[in-house]
Amino acid sequence: MTAIFLHPDYTPTETSAKLTFGGNRLNRQSEERADDCVDVALANPSTRLMGFARGRVLVALGAERASGLHSLESLSAFAPKIDRAVLLGFDGDAARLAVPLGINPDEEGFSLPEPFKAIDYRSLARQQLLDAEELGIVAQGGAVLAWHANARFSGRSGQETVMVGGGVKRRCEADGRDEFPRTDPVVIMLITHGDRCLLGRSHHFPAGMYSALAGFVEPGESIEMAVRRETHEESGLFVGDVRYHASQPWPFPHSLMIGCYGEALTDIISRDESELDDCRWFDRETIRTLLQQNDSGGPHEDGALFLPPRLAIANRLVLDWAGLG
Amino acid sequence: MTAIFLHPDYTPTETSAKLTFGGNRLNRQSEERADDCVDVALANPSTRLMGFARGRVLVALGAERASGLHSLESLSAFAPKIDRAVLLGFDGDAARLAVPLGINPDEEGFSLPEPFKAIDYRSLARQQLLDAEELGIVAQGGAVLAWHANARFSGRSGQETVMVGGGVKRRCEADGRDEFPRTDPVVIMLITHGDRCLLGRSHHFPAGMYSALAGFVEPGESIEMAVRRETHEESGLFVGDVRYHASQPWPFPHSLMIGCYGEALTDIISRDESELDDCRWFDRETIRTLLQQNDSGGPHEDGALFLPPRLAIANRLVLDWAGLG
Repeated sequence: MTAIFLHPDYTPTETSAKLTFGGNRLNRQSEERADDCVDVALANPSTRLMGFARGRVLVALGAERASGLHSLESLSAFAPKIDRAVLLGFDGDAARLAVPLGINPDEEGFSLPEPFKAIDYRSLARQQLLDAEELGIVAQGGAVLAWHANARFSGRSGQETVMVGGGVKRRCEADGRDEFPRTDPVVIMLITHGDRCLLGRSHHFPAGMYSALAGFVEPGESIEMAVRRETHEESGLFVGDVRYHASQPWPFPHSLMIGCYGEALTDIISRDESELDDCRWFDRETIRTLLQQNDSGGPHEDGALFLPPRLAIANRLVLDWAGLG
Repeated sequence: MTAIFLHPDYTPTETSAKLTFGGNRLNRQSEERADDCVDVALANPSTRLMGFARGRVLVALGAERASGLHSLESLSAFAPKIDRAVLLGFDGDAARLAVPLGINPDEEGFSLPEPFKAIDYRSLARQQLLDAEELGIVAQGGAVLAWHANARFSGRSGQETVMVGGGVKRRCEADGRDEFPRTDPVVIMLITHGDRCLLGRSHHFPAGMYSALAGFVEPGESIEMAVRRETHEESGLFVGDVRYHASQPWPFPHSLMIGCYGEALTDIISRDESELDDCRWFDRETIRTLLQQNDSGGPHEDGALFLPPRLAIANRLVLDWAGLG
């Protein structure tokens, strides 16, 4: 599929275009939607829906690759909440919708009939079960449905809101005010000092995993200042020059990861113990070794250090710094 | 003032650091706040507050420069809503708060006693009435208070929320869920084609003003893809390579402007008439002339074209492209 907004002879070459979840090519038509656009789409046999339940996507496993796009009919066994279906956009003439499912994969003994599985977004990406375009639909659909679930009421009036334009916005029934999907900008930065880079681990990381530091952009700051503030808060380091590298949509639940490099002006780490379990410098050779081990797959030995998987922008920041991109 | 997260011997040199509203240097201490931090700050005579009312800031005009930071006592005549005061951070040991005022500058016949004025954010910046650091506090305070006003109720439960940690977040009283300030990432792009750049005007712009195209980053897209999609939607042009240039906090009400350059692959414009009043190519010499006229100030002649003021990142994008930065 070629997006309607991409020139047919042009393939994006920036780093962002290589990242997981960044492959969405739908024609969103966000500005020109009729109020009945979801109903019209549902009546069209070419329409395909992606079903979401508790951070998982319903996929049909195939011989080679799975698919997360289903006809309305084939979704009927999974309790689709049609009144909450959202129009994501179009692939050619065919509509793509996201719909919450009334199934609970967290329930004990939960199972689905062959060939269906409900698989979390990270596993779908890590195991390359879906192609780049469907992972792009996961990113959009997961983010939009998460926002709708958290925007059922107006934060200003406390009154109920209703979906407008097939889900591109919600309207407060009391005062007519429109609300738009929320996207949270997050800075994620590989801080370097000569031939070393800084990696840390949050308390909630899997044992052994180290990654680039990250944090939400706060009100009233630029991307570069957010990198400096967040790095200093977490590690005590001072950061000088900052350079943007790439960005990635990240549906956990609806972030925009903004990947940067930052040059440390100091190298003595004073870790924020409430935020980080550990934080240290790694030399380039160690990083290259870790990156090579990382792709060999399989479970990590107890206590062994490892880096985030390829689906994460942190991996790309490290990979490009190590010259292995 | 040097921010606690900036190395004392380092001055940021990136383009973002030159932009209006990007001068906030407060130590936010967002992670370590006691629940009574606002009360403690209000009891401290070194605390200063910035008062906000309907997109305006209360300033005391001085002989040289105005100030937007006031003692609690000097604010008392302006109906400060102390229960909605937010702790922004610290300048050294001195706390800085933002507080909504119960005054209505939009009311007919409204006036304030000398030397006070209530001035909108843009005018404060354009007339350089406040210094860069106070404009940075305007950016943070304006964004945070706007978010609080729109987050009084939980979007998920419809129940009331309460401020936590002096305003770094709000908590739903019904389910204990925390909500954090919202920052909306917006791409703003100067599209170029050889020696020309693309500028357009929205229907709501002042007559004669042309600026860079812009739009919200949507769920599931990278910065670069947002630039391509938005440009194509508004102008019909296809964009190839995209390059990040700078970012700017923009308190209208709480955006992060992400400024980029994009190279057009085509040059025939097909404007979205519902979005844009006009959209056209400008050669570099014309832009240089317009930039020089722009800084001469004063009201613009009827029908004369002009560019956004220096306070806008669009001006910086054009300025740097024209080689006049």
